Amino acid sequence: MTAILEPPQTDRDAALRAYELDRKHVFHSWSAQDTLDPMVITAAEGSHVWDGEGNKYLDFSSQLVNTNIGHQHPAVVAAIAAQAAKLCTIAPSYVNDARSEAARLIAERTPGELNRIFFTNGGADANEHAVRMARLHTGRHKVLSAYRSYHGGTHLAVNITGDPRRWASDNASTGTLHFFPPYLYRTAFHSTTEAEEAQRALEHLEQLIEFEGPSSIAAIMLESIPGTAGIYVPPVDYMQGVRELCTKHGIVLIADEVMAGFGRTGKWFAVEHFDVVPDLITFAKGVNSGYVPLGGVAISPEIAATFGTRAYPGGLTYSGHPLATAAAVATINAMEREGMVQHAASLGADVIGPALAGFAERHRSVGEVRGRGVFWAIELVKDRTTREPLAPYGSSSPEMNQLVAACKSRGLIPFANFNRIHVVPPCNISVEDARTGLAVLDEVLDIADTFAR
Amino acid sequence: MTAILEPPQTDRDAALRAYELDRKHVFHSWSAQDTLDPMVITAAEGSHVWDGEGNKYLDFSSQLVNTNIGHQHPAVVAAIAAQAAKLCTIAPSYVNDARSEAARLIAERTPGELNRIFFTNGGADANEHAVRMARLHTGRHKVLSAYRSYHGGTHLAVNITGDPRRWASDNASTGTLHFFPPYLYRTAFHSTTEAEEAQRALEHLEQLIEFEGPSSIAAIMLESIPGTAGIYVPPVDYMQGVRELCTKHGIVLIADEVMAGFGRTGKWFAVEHFDVVPDLITFAKGVNSGYVPLGGVAISPEIAATFGTRAYPGGLTYSGHPLATAAAVATINAMEREGMVQHAASLGADVIGPALAGFAERHRSVGEVRGRGVFWAIELVKDRTTREPLAPYGSSSPEMNQLVAACKSRGLIPFANFNRIHVVPPCNISVEDARTGLAVLDEVLDIADTFAR
Repeated sequence: MTAILEPPQTDRDAALRAYELDRKHVFHSWSAQDTLDPMVITAAEGSHVWDGEGNKYLDFSSQLVNTNIGHQHPAVVAAIAAQAAKLCTIAPSYVNDARSEAARLIAERTPGELNRIFFTNGGADANEHAVRMARLHTGRHKVLSAYRSYHGGTHLAVNITGDPRRWASDNASTGTLHFFPPYLYRTAFHSTTEAEEAQRALEHLEQLIEFEGPSSIAAIMLESIPGTAGIYVPPVDYMQGVRELCTKHGIVLIADEVMAGFGRTGKWFAVEHFDVVPDLITFAKGVNSGYVPLGGVAISPEIAATFGTRAYPGGLTYSGHPLATAAAVATINAMEREGMVQHAASLGADVIGPALAGFAERHRSVGEVRGRGVFWAIELVKDRTTREPLAPYGSSSPEMNQLVAACKSRGLIPFANFNRIHVVPPCNISVEDARTGLAVLDEVLDIADTFAR
Repeated sequence: MTAILEPPQTDRDAALRAYELDRKHVFHSWSAQDTLDPMVITAAEGSHVWDGEGNKYLDFSSQLVNTNIGHQHPAVVAAIAAQAAKLCTIAPSYVNDARSEAARLIAERTPGELNRIFFTNGGADANEHAVRMARLHTGRHKVLSAYRSYHGGTHLAVNITGDPRRWASDNASTGTLHFFPPYLYRTAFHSTTEAEEAQRALEHLEQLIEFEGPSSIAAIMLESIPGTAGIYVPPVDYMQGVRELCTKHGIVLIADEVMAGFGRTGKWFAVEHFDVVPDLITFAKGVNSGYVPLGGVAISPEIAATFGTRAYPGGLTYSGHPLATAAAVATINAMEREGMVQHAASLGADVIGPALAGFAERHRSVGEVRGRGVFWAIELVKDRTTREPLAPYGSSSPEMNQLVAACKSRGLIPFANFNRIHVVPPCNISVEDARTGLAVLDEVLDIADTFAR
């Protein structure tokens, strides 16, 4: 696939002006400001975006893994315009029909009886509020979470995070502690089988709970399937074991489904793969594909009851924002109507999974592939024996940068992190487009192979 | 004014269903869930809203003091629909024209050279990121802020907060400390004049800095004019003195303009009243009247330079969201075109201010009135001599609840907090509507007088 020029879509002068104003006035996240040369995006549709020169790209990143229904889904665009014309904003204390309906649709899809929804602006504040609920429900303070995880950018959320994005904000004062999750390919437990890894990781967590003191631990927060940190699909026994440990010790289990939820893994929620019901589920991104900022917490009856007659001490101006929740209603209904969750599952089982298994066979730079649905990681190594990564933990490398550039020059926007390329297209990407993108990755892995021994 | 029935606007069955789903599925902020009986809002326009039975109300709250341009401004509604049709969402790493233009329009209105804009989802995360910038810029940790302040609902932001909403989340571990701001009516410094209060409050802050150690203090965060906590307009000398203290000790001055910014006080930013240029300004609410969730930080060149070649360690999926920033562009342009900031200033000087001064003369329940623009507080007391408040600090009272109900039964939605009623209508409310609402308050203060000695 080569970049296709579609000049009618693009006003190059406007794109240039947007670029110049960006460089002058926009402060970018997670970046050194002077070193940036950001790409202009002028238009998007389905699984494709266009840059400021009219080049078309296949979006295998779903942006930040949020456009689960692709770009500019007409039903959601129409719903946003309709809600804007009706009522853009209203304070959280009132009843609003869009908010009520979104809460119903989400509650009906969560596992168990997580039937009360607290709406936030995104995933970070969803996780912050989930922790507050857990702390006040239990009367305990500590929060345990996994290394190799991401839970958001605000202070508490980034301290719960288990990847290097935490470090700059971590002065070890937020009551957060980290444990090693199962990850057989780079085992922390000297395991040789997945069953052994699951069992040893669970023992490790159990020991940590024992030595930290169960009565001091409010919550364990886990991405049901960790996302940006590497898409590690945990063994079923592990997740069920964590649930049992939480139940045994009265610890609140918080499943962070900000990235894994709403169809991404081929289920509405990724916890369904493990037949586990957490006490709280946090969500954002896929709930309305990020068309309007929205996040939230789905709450168990027990925790909701804690705040039945005692006020919940938290809130935000845009909680349950009409425009955001109207977009969620339209998104969930479109996903249901068009069978997108099942489509994502099929893509994983029949298209992406088999293709990635082929990559692992044919490309010596591929150390491991793993995933579900439209949520996959390709782990790149310099040497399959030593498993030396193609970029160090917490960083990039010239080799990885070259692979990303090679994807882009072939009209594909990949999602890269450290030594991994993630395959995370929209849930409703066509089989043809998925195969096209996978073919580009196959070519690019030929380059990666030249870096590998 | 009595409630006006306008049945054509209202589908009562739909309103009832929205109510029932809300009670079943929506978890409300700052509330005990079982004790709520929330009002349904079905429609809004300008300074008015309609409830589920078709009753029309004058909105003297601007919801949570965010609809500075009133409800459903046609230019902003149209801009949201147009941007939705063009491009709903794109990751923060790309350039987007709506984001670029919003950054330009905001940067041009901030005082001094605060020309770089980091966009967030709301005010809480804006304040969290401002603190992170200050901490990394200075290499220091502590954050000082005022009692009688609110800075947001996430963990760090609510710990910076100086009102009782902090307490449930405060275990004294976030490096936040509080000082007493000037407030002559209930002076903490035994002052008798405003000049004395300003000087003594400044001495108090100076002593706190000295004893805490200037080299340990990253930032002082202040609402330029504190909002929900009580609309305390600080003396000019005080604000200039705080600026001097910060400059002297290399402390970052963060002006929280989430509520006071974007026209609310009759200026684009409230710091302009004091001729003070802070190092960071945080904003949300009025930037687009809350039509789409948006917040941000305006950054000085010095602090931006800290992250020129060193990555800023923070971000969020929806930073600079196209729909939210397109709404900001339309809002700022409409405010400019229609002279709303000047209108707000005139309303304060010629209509609201004089009316409230009259209330203070005529009503024995009124202890003090204060404000600027469309940002005013009426402080209610049981006794003007003892200044005993009509509700205790941090709480409500049957008397206050009765006054709120009396407003609503007369078709007015007030903003009440503790023993105060705030007069915070949209910046573009008509003089006629403002007078109508003030006449209702005058009536309701007759009731308040019966509670006062």
